Amino acid sequence: MLEKIDLSKRIGKDAYKERIREQSEKLGELQRRCKEAGIPVMIVFEGLGASGKGTQINHLIQALDPRGFDVYANDKSTREERLHPFLWRFWTKLPAQGRIALFDRSWYRQVTMERFDGKIPEAAMPGALRDIQSFERQLTDDGMVIIKLFLYISEKEQKQRFKKLESSKDTSWRVSKDDWRRNKDYSRFISICEEMLEKTDMDYAPWNIIEATDRRYASVKIMTLVTDCLEEALRQREIRGERKEKEIPVRSIQYQNGVLSGVDLTKSLSREDYKKEIGYLQKRLERLHSQIYLRKIPVVLGFEGWDAAGKGGAIKRLTSHLDPRGYKVFPTSAPNDLERVHHYLWRFWNHVPKAGHIAIFDRTWYGRVLVERIEGFCSEEEWKQAYQEINEMEDHMANAGAVVLKFWLHIDKDEQERRFLARQENPQKQWKITEEDWRNREKWDQYEEAVNEMLVRTSTTYAPWIVVEGNCKYYARVKILRTVVDVLEAKIRETKKNP
Amino acid sequence: MLEKIDLSKRIGKDAYKERIREQSEKLGELQRRCKEAGIPVMIVFEGLGASGKGTQINHLIQALDPRGFDVYANDKSTREERLHPFLWRFWTKLPAQGRIALFDRSWYRQVTMERFDGKIPEAAMPGALRDIQSFERQLTDDGMVIIKLFLYISEKEQKQRFKKLESSKDTSWRVSKDDWRRNKDYSRFISICEEMLEKTDMDYAPWNIIEATDRRYASVKIMTLVTDCLEEALRQREIRGERKEKEIPVRSIQYQNGVLSGVDLTKSLSREDYKKEIGYLQKRLERLHSQIYLRKIPVVLGFEGWDAAGKGGAIKRLTSHLDPRGYKVFPTSAPNDLERVHHYLWRFWNHVPKAGHIAIFDRTWYGRVLVERIEGFCSEEEWKQAYQEINEMEDHMANAGAVVLKFWLHIDKDEQERRFLARQENPQKQWKITEEDWRNREKWDQYEEAVNEMLVRTSTTYAPWIVVEGNCKYYARVKILRTVVDVLEAKIRETKKNP
Repeated sequence: MLEKIDLSKRIGKDAYKERIREQSEKLGELQRRCKEAGIPVMIVFEGLGASGKGTQINHLIQALDPRGFDVYANDKSTREERLHPFLWRFWTKLPAQGRIALFDRSWYRQVTMERFDGKIPEAAMPGALRDIQSFERQLTDDGMVIIKLFLYISEKEQKQRFKKLESSKDTSWRVSKDDWRRNKDYSRFISICEEMLEKTDMDYAPWNIIEATDRRYASVKIMTLVTDCLEEALRQREIRGERKEKEIPVRSIQYQNGVLSGVDLTKSLSREDYKKEIGYLQKRLERLHSQIYLRKIPVVLGFEGWDAAGKGGAIKRLTSHLDPRGYKVFPTSAPNDLERVHHYLWRFWNHVPKAGHIAIFDRTWYGRVLVERIEGFCSEEEWKQAYQEINEMEDHMANAGAVVLKFWLHIDKDEQERRFLARQENPQKQWKITEEDWRNREKWDQYEEAVNEMLVRTSTTYAPWIVVEGNCKYYARVKILRTVVDVLEAKIRETKKNP
Repeated sequence: MLEKIDLSKRIGKDAYKERIREQSEKLGELQRRCKEAGIPVMIVFEGLGASGKGTQINHLIQALDPRGFDVYANDKSTREERLHPFLWRFWTKLPAQGRIALFDRSWYRQVTMERFDGKIPEAAMPGALRDIQSFERQLTDDGMVIIKLFLYISEKEQKQRFKKLESSKDTSWRVSKDDWRRNKDYSRFISICEEMLEKTDMDYAPWNIIEATDRRYASVKIMTLVTDCLEEALRQREIRGERKEKEIPVRSIQYQNGVLSGVDLTKSLSREDYKKEIGYLQKRLERLHSQIYLRKIPVVLGFEGWDAAGKGGAIKRLTSHLDPRGYKVFPTSAPNDLERVHHYLWRFWNHVPKAGHIAIFDRTWYGRVLVERIEGFCSEEEWKQAYQEINEMEDHMANAGAVVLKFWLHIDKDEQERRFLARQENPQKQWKITEEDWRNREKWDQYEEAVNEMLVRTSTTYAPWIVVEGNCKYYARVKILRTVVDVLEAKIRETKKNP
């Protein structure tokens, strides 16, 4: 994409002033309209060293209301960030609806500079590019506007700029050895950028090359591009808004006699056997916890299940012997204000465990295809899309070395009723039962279909579902603990072989 | 406080089981009641190495609803944390109303382990202890319950535990060289702890020594202590709730003819002089920005002023030549859901700049003694307390090396009216004027008193107020820029002398 670019483009001072004034006013107004429409915007500044990214960002934000944007400078990742999947630091920085986030370098650092420096093995490139593609697709599907800018200057121009920066003591620290290496080996760096640009130039998030030799020309082009993109986004939003019709909830006939109907709920365990087994497994897990910490393995355990299926009790048995510095339990309830104005996966990305730590989710991102689907909190298009999005997220975690397990705690309708009634009679547990629990119960069949579909479509090799026969709590707890112990032991054996 | 402690205390297994069951049930219920009452709780686990903090925390949280608590392990501070004032990492982790935060080591690390290791100079100790005292006082004044536990074991017991940990490969990594040094020099470490315990044992946040030789004894004591404290907090809340009466807004007569009445608003600057000066100052500031980055000086600039006094315009001129990677503008509006259930200073602590960075606040924490005071959003007691709390916060920032400047942009009532009307006529600026602005204007006199009091009570040597004559925008912008430039240059000179 780069060889056709004419780097000699310039603009005169007067024309520049007029264009900037005109575009600035427009931009301020577009920002307000996007805020009203709840459109989130990401503007990505990538490109060559000393191509003027910082200056251009500062120029652009002068036209914006500071109440509505954030600038993120993405230097080398911190230790904390390197202990997470590489997209984690960007997921956690997503702009809320109506806000603008500007990125000075971005998730593309991975597939440009770090590739050039040899920090990312070549074998990891296709995976990283695929992760980036799905990241941007998920966000744009959710209404995000992504504007990607690549600031381009010639080898000679870059060399001159580095020299100028080095000539003053106020700015010399800005030029690093790595910068010079990329200038010396300019053509190799450019060819890496070329490949990145080609592979990530998608219709939903296209690249824009900015000829950055003349700063004024670049400023005008960037500002014009941004205003054009925002105008287009608002126009699209209007069209889609008009087309939106009342949706009809879909019944998934093919999932009516699915996985759950085959589960053997008579499985049980005596109190004695339970006591023996659970104690033994808890001690093994305690030792494994040290091992996964030392081997820096992140662990994600998701718990879903019918109300009163025993998720809380199972999680307690799982964690009772663990070091609290190494695990966290994240209970998921209805999203709060801030969560509601972000992508539905954002709040879970905020809790992705770092290497060596365990994150336990009491209810999970699968709410999208369960309660949100049934209650109509999202559209049919949205929950149908979610299967792929969730698989991609879990795949990304697994690629970063994580163990990902998901448990469905299954009980039958009679058992649930017994437990609801028992809770209502116990003063210590009354608070656990609400009107809503009884209402959800009435939608048992709809939920069952949704669970069946979820189990089929999101049980993967890298993040399997384990259906837990839960009518007998002892049996269920032991099965969960044993599964976790077995999987962690296998993972540790594997890392011993391929350290 | 430690020499009187009997470390041989024990409890039998059966008595233990019964007490724990009883206290666990109680604790679960108290957690729910504290949640309803909106009481935030911090439980601090301090004490000797291998005294069982992790185990005790895990034991305690088994009785808690995971939807209501967080555990924070405070290992050595990260690079990011060291670039902030030392209390920053704890301010940002405050529990919201109704939530419980458990700290495995805490802000006391600074005045115990790091003091022992010689990482904190002795001269910094009194300041650090004072910062801790005011931190805890501010929080408890705001309704926080702080439960501080010091787990104590003997030199011999500690040695045995270290040896036992070292004997297994699963746990040997838990014992560090530093741990052994604290055991070898046990009496010196204990005397450091003694001093810390004595100086921070306050009526609003007392210490509890836990005899931790027998883990069961310690568990029972901790759980009983926590339930007692929560019960007491609920009782206090009820009493205070009953006593709360309608408050009568107070007029501060002594501030009626205060600082603002003496401000000379005729000061002005011609357009030509402005253009010359502003360009010169912006270039100087650009260079200084590099200097403060290299010297790791954090800079906090707060802007307050009448509506339409020109805060936004001044901030734009201040930032137009700065590198966006090194500064952030934080506009302050009404607090959101999450902010409302935290201490009012919490949201500003979240934006304290790290070393080498500039944080610009468009409206600030002074809202507490301005809008919140005038509109009755907080009680009289609360805003009167705020002067000291704010001074303490700014003092803490200054102690961490920060430059803290606060600007009051002053215009007179006629000038404000002219600007409101001009904005209403300009289609680009109409959105800036709301009904509320006109309503606030009616309370001009009350605001003037509040501003006068604020200027007197919170202009300090370490964080001065600068009143800016704002009827002429040119004059105001130049004055602000020149002040910032002068103060930064002086600071840099000072750090050159005392690096």
